Order: sequence, then C-alpha cells, then structure tokens
Amino acid sequence: MTKAVTDPAQMTITQLQVAIGRGDLQPSEVTESCLARAGGCEHEVRAWACLGDDKARMAARLLDASPATGALHGIPFGVKDIIDTFDMPTQFGTPIYHDHRAHRDAACVALLREAGGVCLGKTVTTELAHFHPGKTRNPHGLQHTPGGSSSGSAAAVAAAMVPFALGTQTTGSVLRPAAYCGVYGFKPSFGDINRSGVFECAASFDTLGWFTRCVDDIEIVRRALLRAPARALEVVELADLRIGLFRGPHWDKAESATQQLIEASAQQLSTGGAHVHDIEPPPGFDGIAQHHRTISGYEFARAISWERTQHGQLLSPKLLDGRCEDGLQASYEDYITAQAALVQQRLAYEQMMRDYDVLLTAVAPGEAWHGLQATGDPVFNTAWTALHVPALSVPAFTGTGGMPVGLQIVGAFRADAKLLAAARAICQGLNIGIVPGVG
Amino acid sequence: MTKAVTDPAQMTITQLQVAIGRGDLQPSEVTESCLARAGGCEHEVRAWACLGDDKARMAARLLDASPATGALHGIPFGVKDIIDTFDMPTQFGTPIYHDHRAHRDAACVALLREAGGVCLGKTVTTELAHFHPGKTRNPHGLQHTPGGSSSGSAAAVAAAMVPFALGTQTTGSVLRPAAYCGVYGFKPSFGDINRSGVFECAASFDTLGWFTRCVDDIEIVRRALLRAPARALEVVELADLRIGLFRGPHWDKAESATQQLIEASAQQLSTGGAHVHDIEPPPGFDGIAQHHRTISGYEFARAISWERTQHGQLLSPKLLDGRCEDGLQASYEDYITAQAALVQQRLAYEQMMRDYDVLLTAVAPGEAWHGLQATGDPVFNTAWTALHVPALSVPAFTGTGGMPVGLQIVGAFRADAKLLAAARAICQGLNIGIVPGVG
Repeated sequence: MTKAVTDPAQMTITQLQVAIGRGDLQPSEVTESCLARAGGCEHEVRAWACLGDDKARMAARLLDASPATGALHGIPFGVKDIIDTFDMPTQFGTPIYHDHRAHRDAACVALLREAGGVCLGKTVTTELAHFHPGKTRNPHGLQHTPGGSSSGSAAAVAAAMVPFALGTQTTGSVLRPAAYCGVYGFKPSFGDINRSGVFECAASFDTLGWFTRCVDDIEIVRRALLRAPARALEVVELADLRIGLFRGPHWDKAESATQQLIEASAQQLSTGGAHVHDIEPPPGFDGIAQHHRTISGYEFARAISWERTQHGQLLSPKLLDGRCEDGLQASYEDYITAQAALVQQRLAYEQMMRDYDVLLTAVAPGEAWHGLQATGDPVFNTAWTALHVPALSVPAFTGTGGMPVGLQIVGAFRADAKLLAAARAICQGLNIGIVPGVG
Repeated sequence: MTKAVTDPAQMTITQLQVAIGRGDLQPSEVTESCLARAGGCEHEVRAWACLGDDKARMAARLLDASPATGALHGIPFGVKDIIDTFDMPTQFGTPIYHDHRAHRDAACVALLREAGGVCLGKTVTTELAHFHPGKTRNPHGLQHTPGGSSSGSAAAVAAAMVPFALGTQTTGSVLRPAAYCGVYGFKPSFGDINRSGVFECAASFDTLGWFTRCVDDIEIVRRALLRAPARALEVVELADLRIGLFRGPHWDKAESATQQLIEASAQQLSTGGAHVHDIEPPPGFDGIAQHHRTISGYEFARAISWERTQHGQLLSPKLLDGRCEDGLQASYEDYITAQAALVQQRLAYEQMMRDYDVLLTAVAPGEAWHGLQATGDPVFNTAWTALHVPALSVPAFTGTGGMPVGLQIVGAFRADAKLLAAARAICQGLNIGIVPGVG
C-alpha cells in the first residue's frame, strides 16, 4: 500500500472516493488525518461541540476491513449539533440539553453511515439553530463570525477537519456561513431530504443542507441522503445556460464591493458565452421576508413549547424576546394568510424560472462581520428558503478585508441536479475550483 | 363543595369545563374518576401502553390549587405512544424502544399541559404507527379490532377512560379507529398542528388528530393545540349548508348496509333543509391512493433508516416487506412525480369545494373486523389525508352486527372551524349527540 502524497484531510470526497477505491488510502488513514487536523486547529476554530475520536476510529477500522460498496465508504463527516446521533451527545446549543443523548440516529445520519460515511463528531450550532452564537470562530480570521446557525459545520469544512458536514437552514443558516467561511454550501429543495431526528424550528422552512470544498461533492452527498444510486452531474456548457442576474429588493443592503463582484461575474459569464439577463422579481416578492417572519415565529414558538414552559430561564433574551415573542403574538389567521401568500409567490417564481436555468445573486451583504456576538444578516437568504427552492453558495471572491465573499446560485424547485450542473459550468467559467483547507 | 351527580369520567370536555369552572368538580376528582374507569375496564380493553397514575394525580393536585386559566384546566387526556412525553416512556409500539424515555414533551403535549390538561398516560399504537397491531381491543366487542394505528386512543375515549386522546394519521389512523370504536375522530388540515416530538412516518402526510365524545370538544382541543384563544363554533343551520354526497371511486368497497346508511342520512339532511347534491370526484382522483403509496413508502423507508439498518430483525415482516420495501424500490423521480400529481389534485379539490361546504362519505367499509390480527382497510381515508384536508368521523350508526359505523364529513383546506360548525348542524339534524362511554 502506498501512502497518498496529499494530506487526506485536504482531499475532496471525489478525490477520496478514487484513492480509497484504488486502495491507495484506507478509511482509517483518512479519519486519522482529519483527527490530526482537528488536533492542530480546533483550539482556535472551536468548530466542534463534541469530537468523537474513538467512535470514528472504530467505525473507520470496520470499514478498512469491508469492501467499498457505499458512495461514502470511509469518508468522515461532521453533524450539526441539532441533529440526533445515537453514539454522541446532541446538545442543541443550549444548556437545557447539556450532555443530552438521543436514542437513535437522525435519518440523514443513518443514511450517511449506511453509505459508508464516518461520523467524526457534532459541530457547534447557535442556540436551537437561531441567532444567539456558539463558540465557533471563522478560520479565515479568528475575530470574525463564522456565520450561523450552522457555524461549526461551515468552519470545520473550511479548516479541512472534514471533507463535508451537515447543517440546517430555516432562514439563512447554511448559505451565509458557507459564504463567510469560504466553502460551498447547499440548501436543497424543501422536502427532498428526510428530517426525522433533526430538531424542528419551523417545519414549513427547515431544510437540511451541507458544506463541501467542491461542487461535485455536493451532489455525491445529495444522492447519498436521497438514498439514490450515485450518478455524476450532467456536463453543461456556459453557452447552454440562461442565467438571470437577480439584484432584487434588498440589493442596496449589499456592500458596493459585493455588488461589483457579482456584476463583474455576470459580465464574465456573458463573455464566456452564457445568456445572461437582468431579471426583476415578480410582484409581491418584497413581502416574502415578512411572511417568512410570521410563519417561522408562529411555528417556532409552538415547536419549543416544552422548552419555553419548562426551561424559559435558560433561553437567551435574543430568542425569547425575538422570534419566540413574535410567534406568540401571531394569530392563526395571520399564519394562514402568510402561508397562502407564499403559495402564490412560489407559483410566480416557477413561472419566472421557465425562462431561466439559474439566478445569480448575493449570499450576504459582504464579508463576515468582525466580532463574535452576532452571526450576520440573512437578508439575501430568506426568500429562497421561503420559496423552497435550491440554493448554492460558491466561494467566489476575496473581499477588500481579505475575508471570503460568496456568490449565490439559485435554481427552480426540484431541479437541484440541474442547478448543480449549471453551478459547475459557472465555477469553471469564473475559475472557481476546489477550496483548500485554511490554517 | 358538592359532588357532581354524573360520573366525571362520563362527562365531555365541555361539561367538565363548566363543572370545574363552577367549582362543582376539582381536577383531582376528574382524574380519579378516569383512573377508576381505567381500573375497571383496562384489563379487557388494553388501551394503555403506560398509565401514569401517580404523575397524573400529582399534576391534578397542583391544578386543584391553581386558578382555572387554561381551556383544559383539569381535563385528563391520553397520548398515542409515538408522541414524546418527558415523564413517561415512549415506546412506539416496537420492542426496539422497550422502556425508552424521551427527554422532552412533544409540542402538542406541552401545549395541552400549558392549557391545564392532565396527561393520564400513553395509549397503544400499532408498530411505528403502521399496520402491525398492538394489544388493544374494541370496547364495543372485545373480539373486534379497534382499528389503527391510533388504537389505544380511540378505545380509551370510547370506554370513557379519558374525555379526549391524541392520535396521528398518515393514511387512516385516526378516522378509521374513531369509526370502529364509535367516537368522534378528527384529522385537521395538514400543517396546522405542530408535530415536533411526534414520530415521523411520512412527513408529507403525518397529521396529529384526536378523539372526543362530542363535536364541540373537537374544537376546544383544536384551539388549545393551535395555542389560540378559546372560541365557540359558529352556529349554522342545515338550510345554510351545501353538502356533497361523495361516493367516489371506492364506493363499491363499502358494504351495502354502510352505503344505505350514508345515503339515508343525506336524504334526511335534505329533508331537514340542507342543500344536498351527488358529487363526482375530479379527474385523476382515483390515482391519489397510488401517489400516496409511493410517497408514504418513499418517506417512511428513509425516516426509519436507523431502525432499518440497526434493528431490522425487530421490525415486523408486515412493515419490512410492505411499506418499507415499497419505499426502497421507489426512485426519487417516482417520488417527485407523485408529489407533483398531488399538487394538481389539491387544486382540483379546492376548485370543487367552491360549491360545497362539506362532503359526506364513508369512513370505513363497515363495522370493525372480527379478530385482532389486522386493523382494517383505510380505503376511505387515504385521499383526504393525501389532499391535506380536514376530516371528521362521526359516530352515526350501529351496523347489522351491533358494532358502530361512522359517517365521514370532509371540508376544505384550512376551513376546519367551518367543517366542525357544519358537522354540529349535521349531527343535530341526524340526532347524533354525546357518545356515552362503553362498558
């Protein structure tokens, strides 16, 4: 057996599949390499709520001795700590669940393990996946927020402690940390990936998502989570793509540097042969954020009824006085009115996307904020979550402050593979490739 | 304090509210009365997976000393054993979870307790809320199935061991046991009642439901679960109602006695002044059952990935070789095709219901089957679950075998209060009132 030249922790899933498949790498070596990286940078990044060294080693050794049947054979991954695992604590980012252990794996975790994946540990989440931050720092600048709520998963992938990690998005909790930490982050179409065993915040929006260091890896994980046979993304050319440059109602909240980077990218893709057009939002689009707020507050305040009534003193004021209070004030009539309005917006979006394959837009106003007290503004994420459509954050740029800036690519409902194929062509056109681990 | 003349366990929520509000009854007396009933008939009915005597007594005593602020102050209830409770085991009807304890209350349970309700215990469910039966027997005939999967909840209410109990419906798991056990059973519009802490079978259909012994009680529980202020049902007259007599594509599966009872009811309502018309299903309606099967199988097989991969030998052949295998065979493309077809059917249904307030139809082919090996056929339930619309089973008739036969009333999406108001008028018109406890 020859050792791979590259540090396995720096390899993508796609690369690891080849190396493990050939016998150049053993699952144990990959896990050890990831654990060694974690040993080297976790004291600074603080991505993990619980690192399951021994359990991961044991799982990897079992895989060393087994034929590589699953698509993720021997591939380590991280799991946001609002997702149940039977063998490690699940603490939801709140002292209410200090040292709590779930009795089973969430469906997504069980599916990844069924495909041969090795759970390396649980990654830091903000309090109950909301805005009160955890301990994680941005690997690109330790005084900067990693974004949230899937803070630890984004940071762990950015620091190459794992090739991929699971997060969840109810507003902007996958896309924004992906942009801030300079990795790929994907929120699939709502409803596609099973949520059993994932903490419920707002059932109308909660979506499992994940972080990787290249586009192809996104699809590998997606198909494992769907329990679908592996299949490579279709190859498309820029000239085949109809791209909408979508500034939308919140464009003035993007910093001018962000605006310029995205507009320049659109120009570059157009020069490269893509059909790029400015696109206006459908009527009523600017009301989506308020509908999302009504619905997510309403649902959240009810979902955490037990925590609210039994452990209210352990919840942060940010959560209790914010979304929870919003939700208790919202009436059933407010709620169903907002739901009905979103149904109309989804139809309008579907209509609009008959003429486009994907949209290009901002992921976040700019670089990750300095300071660790807040996780940033989801203003560019809320609408796509509310519309249930797939969205990808691509680590496209470096901002004027030296921190990553993302580019968001949005697709049509349940056209996730099409979005990812288009994203690959776009990344090639913009010369965006595999992200090396930071630090 | 004067003792109520009636046995409190035989009273409805509406009656108990008055008696407790006046001080004629204390919460403890109600709980003791329900526990005494359970002591008298549980050995025959076997409705409970766990009866929480001491915990219920303690909760009731605390309420004795508190002002009656909540709508359910001092009202005992049962909880289907796939719904988490922090203080009693949750065993999901499978040996996999023998003696398992959840760490929190499901949102629905916490909301009922917040409204002053007293959790009396956990009621028997079939295995993971599917078709493999539990130990419960029908209080109207102990050799007959109570229906399923919410078997214990329906039987406990029928036997007056509690005035109401929670169930869940993914296919026909509330409506059918309600009909078989001769109580009111309600499945609200999909998405209205929070499901956090309820075992996930098929997220696209899983709906919390409940059983009572009168129509008004259904609305009291509904508003507590919505965390909405109490509000009585609107009073409507039969002459105000546009009723569709819906036979549908499976009418020939109803026994002729059932067909005649429902047709006679429609005639009687018409005579009473209601506008009753025969109604034909929209095109494609007869395909709904197959779409439901594809989607529920697909989702279920993924939701129980942990149980399937880790404890497959403890799952019943009925479950593994049935819905689970169906689901593993279904592809993602099959799944989204079926989902898209149901979206169209929901639109067609909405269109049809512009001309009707409610539909009348069968709940089940006939009386509860003799024998305890199977829970009956959900053929008259699947479509309404798949369409996400509210449906009520009314204990309308006694069949030729002396067992109860239900009448189903179906409404438009998110017009639940309207459906229940219409149902009250219909029940009055058919002289169907409060169901006395059996046994």
